[in-house]
Amino acid sequence: MQCVSRLLRANPSNSLRNCKFKPAPAFISTPPYQSHPTQSRSFAATPTHFKFVVPKRKQQVTMPSDMTTFKGKPFDRASLESVMKRRLFYTPAFDIYGGVSGLYDYGPPGTALTNNIVDIWRKHFVLKENMLEVDTTMLTPHEVLKTSGHVDKFADWMCKDPKTGEIFRADHLVEEVLEARLKGNKEARGEKVEVEEEDPKKKKKKVKNITAVKLDDAVVTEYEEILAKIDNYNGEELGLLMKKYDIKNPATNGELNPPVAFNLMFQTSIGPSSNMPGYLRPETAQGQFLNFAKLLEFNQQQMPFASASIGKSFRNEISPRAGLLRVREFLMAEIEHFVDPEGGKKHPRFEDVADVELELLDRDVQLSGKTTIKTTKIGEAVKSGMVDNETLGYFLARIQQFLLKIGADPKKIRFRQHMANEMAHYAADCWDAELLTSYGWIECVGCADRSAYDLTVHMKKTGAPLVVREPRKEPLNIEEYVCDIEKKKFGPKFKKDGKTVENAIEALTQDLREKLSLDLEKEGKIVIDVPGVGDGKVEVPKELIKIEKRTRVEHVREYTPNVIEPSFGIGRIVYALCEHTYWTREKDEARGVLSFPPTVAPTKALIVPLSTHADFKPFVRTLGDRLQEAGVSTRVDDSGASIGKRYSRNDELGTPLGITIDFQSVKDNTFTLRDRDSTEQVRAGLDEIVAAIVSLVNGKEQWSDVAARLPKFEGQEAEE
Amino acid sequence: MQCVSRLLRANPSNSLRNCKFKPAPAFISTPPYQSHPTQSRSFAATPTHFKFVVPKRKQQVTMPSDMTTFKGKPFDRASLESVMKRRLFYTPAFDIYGGVSGLYDYGPPGTALTNNIVDIWRKHFVLKENMLEVDTTMLTPHEVLKTSGHVDKFADWMCKDPKTGEIFRADHLVEEVLEARLKGNKEARGEKVEVEEEDPKKKKKKVKNITAVKLDDAVVTEYEEILAKIDNYNGEELGLLMKKYDIKNPATNGELNPPVAFNLMFQTSIGPSSNMPGYLRPETAQGQFLNFAKLLEFNQQQMPFASASIGKSFRNEISPRAGLLRVREFLMAEIEHFVDPEGGKKHPRFEDVADVELELLDRDVQLSGKTTIKTTKIGEAVKSGMVDNETLGYFLARIQQFLLKIGADPKKIRFRQHMANEMAHYAADCWDAELLTSYGWIECVGCADRSAYDLTVHMKKTGAPLVVREPRKEPLNIEEYVCDIEKKKFGPKFKKDGKTVENAIEALTQDLREKLSLDLEKEGKIVIDVPGVGDGKVEVPKELIKIEKRTRVEHVREYTPNVIEPSFGIGRIVYALCEHTYWTREKDEARGVLSFPPTVAPTKALIVPLSTHADFKPFVRTLGDRLQEAGVSTRVDDSGASIGKRYSRNDELGTPLGITIDFQSVKDNTFTLRDRDSTEQVRAGLDEIVAAIVSLVNGKEQWSDVAARLPKFEGQEAEE
Repeated sequence: MQCVSRLLRANPSNSLRNCKFKPAPAFISTPPYQSHPTQSRSFAATPTHFKFVVPKRKQQVTMPSDMTTFKGKPFDRASLESVMKRRLFYTPAFDIYGGVSGLYDYGPPGTALTNNIVDIWRKHFVLKENMLEVDTTMLTPHEVLKTSGHVDKFADWMCKDPKTGEIFRADHLVEEVLEARLKGNKEARGEKVEVEEEDPKKKKKKVKNITAVKLDDAVVTEYEEILAKIDNYNGEELGLLMKKYDIKNPATNGELNPPVAFNLMFQTSIGPSSNMPGYLRPETAQGQFLNFAKLLEFNQQQMPFASASIGKSFRNEISPRAGLLRVREFLMAEIEHFVDPEGGKKHPRFEDVADVELELLDRDVQLSGKTTIKTTKIGEAVKSGMVDNETLGYFLARIQQFLLKIGADPKKIRFRQHMANEMAHYAADCWDAELLTSYGWIECVGCADRSAYDLTVHMKKTGAPLVVREPRKEPLNIEEYVCDIEKKKFGPKFKKDGKTVENAIEALTQDLREKLSLDLEKEGKIVIDVPGVGDGKVEVPKELIKIEKRTRVEHVREYTPNVIEPSFGIGRIVYALCEHTYWTREKDEARGVLSFPPTVAPTKALIVPLSTHADFKPFVRTLGDRLQEAGVSTRVDDSGASIGKRYSRNDELGTPLGITIDFQSVKDNTFTLRDRDSTEQVRAGLDEIVAAIVSLVNGKEQWSDVAARLPKFEGQEAEE
Repeated sequence: MQCVSRLLRANPSNSLRNCKFKPAPAFISTPPYQSHPTQSRSFAATPTHFKFVVPKRKQQVTMPSDMTTFKGKPFDRASLESVMKRRLFYTPAFDIYGGVSGLYDYGPPGTALTNNIVDIWRKHFVLKENMLEVDTTMLTPHEVLKTSGHVDKFADWMCKDPKTGEIFRADHLVEEVLEARLKGNKEARGEKVEVEEEDPKKKKKKVKNITAVKLDDAVVTEYEEILAKIDNYNGEELGLLMKKYDIKNPATNGELNPPVAFNLMFQTSIGPSSNMPGYLRPETAQGQFLNFAKLLEFNQQQMPFASASIGKSFRNEISPRAGLLRVREFLMAEIEHFVDPEGGKKHPRFEDVADVELELLDRDVQLSGKTTIKTTKIGEAVKSGMVDNETLGYFLARIQQFLLKIGADPKKIRFRQHMANEMAHYAADCWDAELLTSYGWIECVGCADRSAYDLTVHMKKTGAPLVVREPRKEPLNIEEYVCDIEKKKFGPKFKKDGKTVENAIEALTQDLREKLSLDLEKEGKIVIDVPGVGDGKVEVPKELIKIEKRTRVEHVREYTPNVIEPSFGIGRIVYALCEHTYWTREKDEARGVLSFPPTVAPTKALIVPLSTHADFKPFVRTLGDRLQEAGVSTRVDDSGASIGKRYSRNDELGTPLGITIDFQSVKDNTFTLRDRDSTEQVRAGLDEIVAAIVSLVNGKEQWSDVAARLPKFEGQEAEE
């Protein structure tokens, strides 16, 4: 069962909180942008500081009706997915064993595409900004994730059918049943019901006990209100809804147990004894925080600086769906930019990006129930306060530059600000870079201000100094009440309790000290609470103590840095990029093309000998060797298929360039070079062809430059 | 307790089997090469096909006494390790939480070094050979690893102290106790005992109940024999040894439980119910095998081809030691080259490498108890049969080329052939590339012929056709007995049993058919076994059946490919490379240098302004931007330290080049460029400096080329 009534939904804000890789909420999944009223909440969702508690799957399965391809034609997801599977971009993992949901393997083009994107990411962020890239372990002991809060709160609600053993994700179940009932109501009233595409290969659980039954208008309204807020309910609330609306196992109508929390981390045990429980990390961030002090030292105590990490993370989803968008093992690239919380979080390179224009969907617009995009220069957005600070703004611009560099469609990128109540309680601001796909607007990059939260909790737990200490330019004068104890008389008077009393005095607050200094002056003694000594009250005469207001000069400033965290879901970006670059040839819809930029394309050049004739072989090898030396990845297709068919196969792989070796090549060492997108061809000698390819692959030239330079070739056009 | 009597050991061969990342066995850990007699075995170790059953840690902790640095001076491991930790190449993971043994984080230089090595690996193997790189999941369901055999056999023996709960690895415990007793014996006899370096920070368990006690000569011999074969014992045998020699908890003298097998895979549960147990993969290979059919299809059915995968694998060691050499989470790069088992496993590019000379330690030499290296051209080694086939030979040469490319010391590389009894039972041949380190010769790359084992077991289990089907050049004529059934008469005679009888006839072997054809001729009927029909014997008269010898022509050949598997332990290579490139300055032993080649070095160029003077800032930025554009990673050090001190810090990071910005630079836009290894400097303008750096970093020029081209500069030599 999938959502059909998404268009009716409203405010998703509260629920999504600071959820890092949640899909976009429903109401913004429906371009062209529609306006929806903000609804009031009848249940209070537990506020939490987690960016990713209860990851949601609000993707639309029915596509936005006006979704278009790279070339502006209607987009067909089934056709793209067929290409991606056929060409082995990805495949279900353990397929020959029946597969495991939520686990996918990347085949050669998917792996190369991912590697190229990671490579560009590393150059764009790590190299450009001198970030400190680290590689920390995935295995993480319990204590660390207990401190970070994941052990207690990184969970979804599930309920079990005690008879069949089936397990349901509670919010999904409520959603599916109510949606099925609404659909049944429509059918009973003879209204048109959107028909969903179904994948016949997948055995979907059907909501069986729902037939076409009319519902009262009041009930319809109630259901729609619940669906609009489905992300907001906690376990207890979901249990109440299930009771109230008689929601059972849809397949058997069996009673279900009440929802219980299911932690989304994969648990394991480190070492041979069972006394060191551990988890697979749910994010790379914690490993970076734990090394903060060493990284600061490595950076020679200079602030600000950023660490970065690229690696796999894991989430044990209850029932993963939506292909590559929600998986149990995924590649993340995360940056933790540590910045002084004082001084407005300036960024030294902000001026470089101040004029970059972004499509911003800010909090106020969403609050008013609209999804109107404001095209705004980031400099202005920071100036007006829409974006909280320069560092956050800097990264938003840099994220967009990165997405454009890898070939994302500029019309399908936007930045959505988190609502106040979906954000971490400590966060100053948080924006998601969303990419438009046939599943709606999908969060592919989160950019949050995590404040000092993580460093603070780990420091508190371990005592490690996760702080910056820097000399003050101006020494700080601090006025404070100081207690001086007459140690010589103190011992004889209090004997064994001396130290306890001393500690109690040491612990007195400034307010109390001020009050006590007056007591001392007036009454010649003070009385303080010292639990465990006598009756808990201890009298200290003025001979033993002096309380004075004095000025202390502090030369060193100590602070816990704040963290701005751009966090990239590489798998989601890869998938969205495939949607953004996919189109089909004008004359033939079965001929798909993936128009990756040459820098990103899995293979750069296809080498196509006209036939398997032995004369062509040395040329195949020379071309391959020359290009490999230049770091250009090639593939040879010397199969018996027609040239056109071979190119067409590589269009689906997104290979931007093709080189044909024909009998003319054997004579004069010239070759044709074909451009994937235009199917234009030029012809030139070996060196010129290799130089043109290198130049295109490194992004130094466009095809139009090459086409203008080298003689056009029209020979094999007919075979296309 | 560490081994001190390694030099006394002999034949390690049987025990190490086909263990992928085991350290080198003891007797070859002691250069200069010594000869040891092969000892007879008193216990038979269970033969197994696993390359990695019972990973051993036979490293010497006391260094080979003639171990030298890159510059031929005595090598000091403590000094290198201090540099690596201080400069954050790596650090214990979760250090502020007390750390977890066997888990390490890589800091910025370690991460960059690893990335650069992986990048070169990918170009050298994947790109060069058009390998199909895949990225498969680490989470692996139980069934897959049950089939591969890991669930049952990938284990070490451990025993528990029921009182204290302590867990010991049984073979290590026996080894440590016997070694301690031998040491005690020496002390009691007043012989000199080698003193081990102890790391005061580590709380080592002491073997307490051993004091200086004299042993009979016969006992000493017995102990030494056991130690020489310590890797060969199974759990039961280790239990017997512990009983016989009264081996208990060394700290408390408490009785221990008998050894039990401990599986080395990290277990977890996939999904919300507990009915899908899974593991973290122990190697990347299985994911490649499972996708074989799809990869073959992707490769357009062409053989041979190779898949490759780079990713983390996991082993839950009982008690990890030896730093980066034996960890619980590690990066592997594995190639599975699929080849036709017929036709001698030729390799199309073998001629390219036939003249490459390798240092080979072959099986026969080891059998004779020697470690004499034969420097042999790989072409000759294959020709003579020392190396089994071209494909294996090709990869050995390519592995060496890779190791040299990243900067391994050619004098510290050798290839050791597995002994017949340490190899998988199916394997034709297996060689390890070993790098000499202060822990002895360490296996860093395994290159094994896994035959058709894995594809066969997975095909058998799942029924998936993990085979190659190819048209035969010459059709194959097969003579066989065929049974023709007279279907029309068959039904009326056997009625409901007709199909069962038919199936029984279909299942008859060729031998039986031959015999029955004679029966049919002689007796006019045959009698066959058909369980479940009548009394289990069925008579078929000649009217119903005909058995004839006929010739069938087979046009398609179907076979299961063999696999040649070069498998790289990247973490081990990284560590060994650091040892190979480390040295200290002539005048000052505290000044360490890591002489990584520029292609591999974590950071390529250090930018050093003479001071923090504002005039230098624009030059720092221009240089940084220009080099970043060229893809060269830089670091700026504008701290207050002297130029010499700043260079010296970056020598320890292995940064090959340094650029100084001084007041002359402000005047005429010229800079000095310094070479890490020679500390020579040249001076030139911005463009020339940038061009020289790019050329050095890409490996196009050596420093000597640049020094010959550009004017020498002697200004700041004094500060070095």
